[in-house]
Amino acid sequence: MLYAVRMDVNIPHHMDARAKAELLATEKAYSQKLQRQGEWQSIWRCVGEYANLSIFDVTGHERLHEILWGLPLFPYMSIDITPLAEHPSDIARG
Amino acid sequence: MLYAVRMDVNIPHHMDARAKAELLATEKAYSQKLQRQGEWQSIWRCVGEYANLSIFDVTGHERLHEILWGLPLFPYMSIDITPLAEHPSDIARG
Amino acid sequence: MLYAVRMDVNIPHHMDARAKAELLATEKAYSQKLQRQGEWQSIWRCVGEYANLSIFDVTGHERLHEILWGLPLFPYMSIDITPLAEHPSDIARG
Amino acid sequence: MLYAVRMDVNIPHHMDARAKAELLATEKAYSQKLQRQGEWQSIWRCVGEYANLSIFDVTGHERLHEILWGLPLFPYMSIDITPLAEHPSDIARG
Amino acid sequence: MLYAVRMDVNIPHHMDARAKAELLATEKAYSQKLQRQGEWQSIWRCVGEYANLSIFDVTGHERLHEILWGLPLFPYMSIDITPLAEHPSDIARG
Amino acid sequence: MLYAVRMDVNIPHHMDARAKAELLATEKAYSQKLQRQGEWQSIWRCVGEYANLSIFDVTGHERLHEILWGLPLFPYMSIDITPLAEHPSDIARG
Amino acid sequence: MLYAVRMDVNIPHHMDARAKAELLATEKAYSQKLQRQGEWQSIWRCVGEYANLSIFDVTGHERLHEILWGLPLFPYMSIDITPLAEHPSDIARG
Amino acid sequence: MLYAVRMDVNIPHHMDARAKAELLATEKAYSQKLQRQGEWQSIWRCVGEYANLSIFDVTGHERLHEILWGLPLFPYMSIDITPLAEHPSDIARG
Amino acid sequence: MLYAVRMDVNIPHHMDARAKAELLATEKAYSQKLQRQGEWQSIWRCVGEYANLSIFDVTGHERLHEILWGLPLFPYMSIDITPLAEHPSDIARG
Amino acid sequence: MLYAVRMDVNIPHHMDARAKAELLATEKAYSQKLQRQGEWQSIWRCVGEYANLSIFDVTGHERLHEILWGLPLFPYMSIDITPLAEHPSDIARG
Repeated sequence: MLYAVRMDVNIPHHMDARAKAELLATEKAYSQKLQRQGEWQSIWRCVGEYANLSIFDVTGHERLHEILWGLPLFPYMSIDITPLAEHPSDIARG
Repeated sequence: MLYAVRMDVNIPHHMDARAKAELLATEKAYSQKLQRQGEWQSIWRCVGEYANLSIFDVTGHERLHEILWGLPLFPYMSIDITPLAEHPSDIARG
Repeated sequence: MLYAVRMDVNIPHHMDARAKAELLATEKAYSQKLQRQGEWQSIWRCVGEYANLSIFDVTGHERLHEILWGLPLFPYMSIDITPLAEHPSDIARG
Repeated sequence: MLYAVRMDVNIPHHMDARAKAELLATEKAYSQKLQRQGEWQSIWRCVGEYANLSIFDVTGHERLHEILWGLPLFPYMSIDITPLAEHPSDIARG
Repeated sequence: MLYAVRMDVNIPHHMDARAKAELLATEKAYSQKLQRQGEWQSIWRCVGEYANLSIFDVTGHERLHEILWGLPLFPYMSIDITPLAEHPSDIARG
Repeated sequence: MLYAVRMDVNIPHHMDARAKAELLATEKAYSQKLQRQGEWQSIWRCVGEYANLSIFDVTGHERLHEILWGLPLFPYMSIDITPLAEHPSDIARG
Repeated sequence: MLYAVRMDVNIPHHMDARAKAELLATEKAYSQKLQRQGEWQSIWRCVGEYANLSIFDVTGHERLHEILWGLPLFPYMSIDITPLAEHPSDIARG
Repeated sequence: MLYAVRMDVNIPHHMDARAKAELLATEKAYSQKLQRQGEWQSIWRCVGEYANLSIFDVTGHERLHEILWGLPLFPYMSIDITPLAEHPSDIARG
Repeated sequence: MLYAVRMDVNIPHHMDARAKAELLATEKAYSQKLQRQGEWQSIWRCVGEYANLSIFDVTGHERLHEILWGLPLFPYMSIDITPLAEHPSDIARG
Repeated sequence: MLYAVRMDVNIPHHMDARAKAELLATEKAYSQKLQRQGEWQSIWRCVGEYANLSIFDVTGHERLHEILWGLPLFPYMSIDITPLAEHPSDIARG
């Protein structure tokens, strides 16, 4: 099942530089593992913003929530979700 | 160059049924031609809404505008654009 | 899979009274059939508004979209969807 | 009387880990006691957000306010309430 | 049970003058009957707007919805409801 | 002259418990004095929110501002004001 | 008593040109009469918008509402009101 | 050239009382000097808010920006500007 | 004096095709004359929208309002204005 | 390719004065280097706000993101981007 997810990141200015670097490295590894598994299908940077637009292909709501809740940056994110269905004009359609 | 584009459709209630059917058929053909050319990379229906989320991969702003302005449904749409860049965590990167 | 769906209805003032009555009867039958099938789990009126809050329990996005798109009142509604997951404090939890 | 209540939680980043764990345990016990009493009828997680959607069935405004004001997480929540009435299409209707 | 209700009125410009006059007379009679019964406790004009702020004192959600849904101007109103509880600083408090 | 005033309170989490208790006691006394004088005509709690809806009956803008600016909680409030006039449907009308 | 009032005008495109000209002439005379009486203290055009910002100096809410409700363009306006008090830094003060 | 300027002030709660008093005194002197020069034509308090509405009459954008940027409270303000032109109904009109 | 102006165009669907073509031709001529005079310094299409972003360099508010009010498409536009001043980092400065 | 970019700056009040001065000097140098290279085509101050409106002319999304992400003030900015295309009425048009 497909979901478009926009994540806006807002890390506090006073976070220690080393703690921040570790946090970002963990986030990257977390994201890349899910990309390799095929659940995090696409990730793009929104130009000029500390934000990404991603497409997830997962078994359903429970799995998507588990993934997002587990994001190392989750406490610093605001997240917006759009459930996606097949479009009748899609040439790749059934 | 990649753009995420959300299109919300609002066709007037009083539009003649045949005119509407023709309009929608033209829109579908227009979209599918661009999909086959590879410029309209993805199109998904936003669940429960007369709206789609699409990814375009075009040469730049002029071409994207030409495509969107030419949409048969353009006069009935509100359109929101997000320019996309490569994300540093993307495994397909580089 | 669970979804909270809020539907706001906006029927044009000039709609013919008989056409409106038929439309509403069809809508009611459509909703009640889905309630009996168990997919439209709950429906409540939002007090003082021509709107409802509903809970759907369906197989996924495609099915929810099919149901909502097929609503006789769909052309007169604006619809807002919230995907729901199990809450860790829910006593009914697995 | 029925109310839909959406609660968005925003715990300060600097809260001590032990204090936070205790707070969350107290919140869970508080919620589950009310669920067992039948006043907190349903609770769902909003996917990808630190938020829940709940249905309360209580004697009225005073009782609902008492419950919400008493939430251990109340100082960290923003709360949105929708009073619900019976819907004329509800098959469970009197 | 108390509710603050704000009603914004938006009558179409093209409504026939006589039909409008009758509609407004019916609305006034409807409101005054409920005021005399004590359910529509207060009504004030919002200065400079075609809107009112009202306080209702009714048995609960079902009754409030019945009253508002029955307003002759209901199809031309947008309505916003705030459930009210006793305030701990109120000197009239129990 | 009548004004509807909504006050949303947002006390910083780190405020000392005793300082907060004193502040709230002062606020309550301040409000009750004005209620007894008849200027703060009504005060209700907005259900589920740290907010109140109040009706003031004062000589005019200068007096209302003096009252609100003097609220012990003023630095922690956001305040929204609606000037009220007599409604033509009010049965208590002149 | 002073009020800042912003009026945004939205005249339907299909209004007959002569009816519109008469309406605007009536509006102008209405405004100028109140300016001469001193109640409509100032009126400015908001640059690039069919809108004005005005300052009214009237006896109170009832009079302001009477004036605004009576505007020939009232049915085509949205109006926003800010009650004004003396500012402690005003050199013209007291 | 005329501008309507609304300034909303938001001074941090933890600011030292003496520093705050000095800041406010400097702000007042700054404002009054400009009022005496005729550039800060009017200043009103927005009732119930830590905000003012002001009218400036200056040579143009550069001068207005210089004045606002120089406000002692500038770092604690959010500012909203509306350029004003002569209104065709203004009786004081050239 | 510089202003950034965003114009969003919303032409009614039912406008006669010939009337629309004439209107657009008049608009284009009007804009180009002002561009040649140097007052309408720049005009860009906002990609995917029936909107433009323009920079005006005019003597002041009165002239800008005169230009915008005179736009053949003015009755079908919503317009948003940002007064611009020299930026301290601008290399073309002073 | 052209982009309109609005940057709103929000530097924390408690930032050390020297650190702030250095940050602003670095920002200015960074901006001016890009202006000299021709990529940062224009920069204007939004009157009365700690904000600028800029026009960038760059090879595409990747380059624009690189520039904005690298801004010394980036962590203290919120940024809004509008892709621009040639306008059919532009006299400078190819």
